[in-house]
Amino acid sequence: MTTRIVELRRGILKKNDELAAGLRHQFTSAGVLVLNLVSSPGTGKTAFLERTLRELRARGAQAAALVGDLETDNDARRLAASGAPVRQINTHGICHLDAEMITRHLEGWEGVSLEGLNYLFIENVGNLVCPSSYDLGERIRVVLLSVTEGEDKPLKYPGLFNSADAAVITKIDLAEPCGFDRELALHNINEIRPGIRIFETSAKTGAGMDAWLAYLAEQARPS
Amino acid sequence: MTTRIVELRRGILKKNDELAAGLRHQFTSAGVLVLNLVSSPGTGKTAFLERTLRELRARGAQAAALVGDLETDNDARRLAASGAPVRQINTHGICHLDAEMITRHLEGWEGVSLEGLNYLFIENVGNLVCPSSYDLGERIRVVLLSVTEGEDKPLKYPGLFNSADAAVITKIDLAEPCGFDRELALHNINEIRPGIRIFETSAKTGAGMDAWLAYLAEQARPS
Repeated sequence: MTTRIVELRRGILKKNDELAAGLRHQFTSAGVLVLNLVSSPGTGKTAFLERTLRELRARGAQAAALVGDLETDNDARRLAASGAPVRQINTHGICHLDAEMITRHLEGWEGVSLEGLNYLFIENVGNLVCPSSYDLGERIRVVLLSVTEGEDKPLKYPGLFNSADAAVITKIDLAEPCGFDRELALHNINEIRPGIRIFETSAKTGAGMDAWLAYLAEQARPS
Repeated sequence: MTTRIVELRRGILKKNDELAAGLRHQFTSAGVLVLNLVSSPGTGKTAFLERTLRELRARGAQAAALVGDLETDNDARRLAASGAPVRQINTHGICHLDAEMITRHLEGWEGVSLEGLNYLFIENVGNLVCPSSYDLGERIRVVLLSVTEGEDKPLKYPGLFNSADAAVITKIDLAEPCGFDRELALHNINEIRPGIRIFETSAKTGAGMDAWLAYLAEQARPS
């Protein structure tokens, strides 16, 4: 049984990698910067993304978002308040997004063409394990960690932190009441992914958003 | 491929259910109350469990814990500070515990016999999706939700909340800085699992622990 499941899993991941490679090619040709946001449930991905979309639009950039959840379209409705085009992906029990779901939801997305976008954000299902194995064709994988979760998360979920290109610490407005140990968190992130870019943010107060937006602009620039 | 994976998954879950039924029989015969603690990463399962173990021991009860994580034995070391016997299960990439892992880690657990225990706590891997499908032979499944995570989690992860026997809200000392909407959280939990017992706790201040410990004592009493 174990051998069969390992083989099947390998087959599924291989098929996903092929689809993701196609997506990546498509995104690059269209000139859109695609980011895959992963974190635990409750880290504040949606609040962070909503503020990001709002600030990008205020700066004249074109941004859109695909948002994954097992059930509900709460997040899509929250994000739509930013004015950006948003599409919900309901996975109905699947604990991560995959490249096939992205492909399917890009098709027939009314009013949205990849060529017209500067940024496409993909908010993954809240999960620190399985999303690490599924490439979605993104150029930048962003792992988010809130100050309320504990500084040890990078050590306990090394697969995901190690696969990330940038790390965002969220809810820093709560650092003090949570007794957040900033040095320890930075140390642990760097232990798993040395030299990774780290942003310390609060979607509530706006702290750290300028550095994050500057990073996005720098990454979006055609090289 | 999808049909094959569904069949295989069904086979794995069936095998797990059989093993779990054996464990449940074993636990019942030994007279030990077994609880399976599930939540998102960072909800504070370990802090809550550490305080529970400490308070149970102070009341003369015999309690032990198995604790699941992908990597590290941080949690076992934290829990061992309570004085209770604790054994770490490292799943190395698997996003949930299963009945086979429990069986294997109960064997040869030095100094621990099920007959000598009043309570056995199983702290699952931090994940709001996959643990819902894996019965560990527990009598009580406890879902934990922290005030920092957002009141919508029951709606977004209905499978897990619906499979739980009790719900514990953690970190209520942070309710005010987080702007936690208590009524909404209680409403959402009850919408998914009507009438479930809910405990509002803080491992830091000890709030709500008395009600929780009274519930444990009541559940452990031979019927």
